[in-house]
Amino acid sequence: MTQDPLQNLIRLLSKLPGLGPRSGRRIALHLLERKEEALSPLSAAFQDVAVKVKSCETCGNLDAISPCQICASPSRDVTQICVVEAVSDLWALERTGVFFGKYHVLGGTLSAMDGRGPEDLRLKGLFARVHSGVQEVIMALNATVEGQATAHYITERLSDFPEVHITTLARGVPIGGELDYLDDGTLMTALQSRRTV
Amino acid sequence: MTQDPLQNLIRLLSKLPGLGPRSGRRIALHLLERKEEALSPLSAAFQDVAVKVKSCETCGNLDAISPCQICASPSRDVTQICVVEAVSDLWALERTGVFFGKYHVLGGTLSAMDGRGPEDLRLKGLFARVHSGVQEVIMALNATVEGQATAHYITERLSDFPEVHITTLARGVPIGGELDYLDDGTLMTALQSRRTV
Ligand SMILES: [Zn+2]
Ligand SMILES: [Zn+2]
Repeated sequence: MTQDPLQNLIRLLSKLPGLGPRSGRRIALHLLERKEEALSPLSAAFQDVAVKVKSCETCGNLDAISPCQICASPSRDVTQICVVEAVSDLWALERTGVFFGKYHVLGGTLSAMDGRGPEDLRLKGLFARVHSGVQEVIMALNATVEGQATAHYITERLSDFPEVHITTLARGVPIGGELDYLDDGTLMTALQSRRTV
Repeated sequence: MTQDPLQNLIRLLSKLPGLGPRSGRRIALHLLERKEEALSPLSAAFQDVAVKVKSCETCGNLDAISPCQICASPSRDVTQICVVEAVSDLWALERTGVFFGKYHVLGGTLSAMDGRGPEDLRLKGLFARVHSGVQEVIMALNATVEGQATAHYITERLSDFPEVHITTLARGVPIGGELDYLDDGTLMTALQSRRTV
């Protein structure tokens, strides 16, 4: 009941997003009752990603190679950069299957409250990329106060590049909505009817 | 996006009880964005339980020692054995804090449908334990057809030990349960076994 290794595993599992003590216990038991079929492959997968998966030095995506597959792909349009807050947003947009440009993952939003300034985001890299032939920057930030403030800040900074067209996702993203939780259809429509800022 | 180690991790996480592709992706990202604080302790905890946690050779509980802490404890009543289907049931009963006997984890139920016979459960060990001074066997199996069929089978087998008192969990309206939402069988049983206040 109160042995260390098992209680420690349950405690760590319970802290994962969406889980709690009950689901943590349930998953721990599931794994321990299936050491060969479930625990050992998952344990190996953990060690595998820990060693192999890294942030792409160009865009901030997570991948086993850097630059990531999207940055390295010659078939993706280098004239479009879609700016997102998190890797989960990049994945959500990729699932729509309608965007063929590149991405830039900020790694968060500006937040006076949480003390996150421009230097805490992947912004320098973004501005450096915009120098080299980019024609459109799509602001695909969350429709939250912080997401929109961050989009506003970036738009201001990019006004130094009048040749760059700045667009944002169409209305259709609900107020306060987080991209990762939207259904793929809504997200696809919002992307396709993006507008000039 | 489609790299192996990360997609493999997401696939394995998605198969855990209560999780799906969305929560699997969310947890994978959470871990990869926190390699030091989240991924590496959880990975270590996995390896730790894989090596250390075993089924108790006496009762079937999972613990870092065998016999487990409950079996080894001199302060727990050896004259009472509470029979449960799974370790999760043992844990649920322990959380009530009102039982101070020993346990026996069957590791499932008899099931003609799934082809599980007596030899697939931890039954031999149970009958062996009953030989040695046990006064009460509490059948704490699930109130399902298979759970009750299994309890019936065990009760039959234990009729060879007339000195052993066989009990089962009380059936009735759960605390906080609204009659309108109870299944008819539970309500009927609760009515039939009504008690004087
Ligand atoms: Zn990249
Ligand atoms: Zn034990």
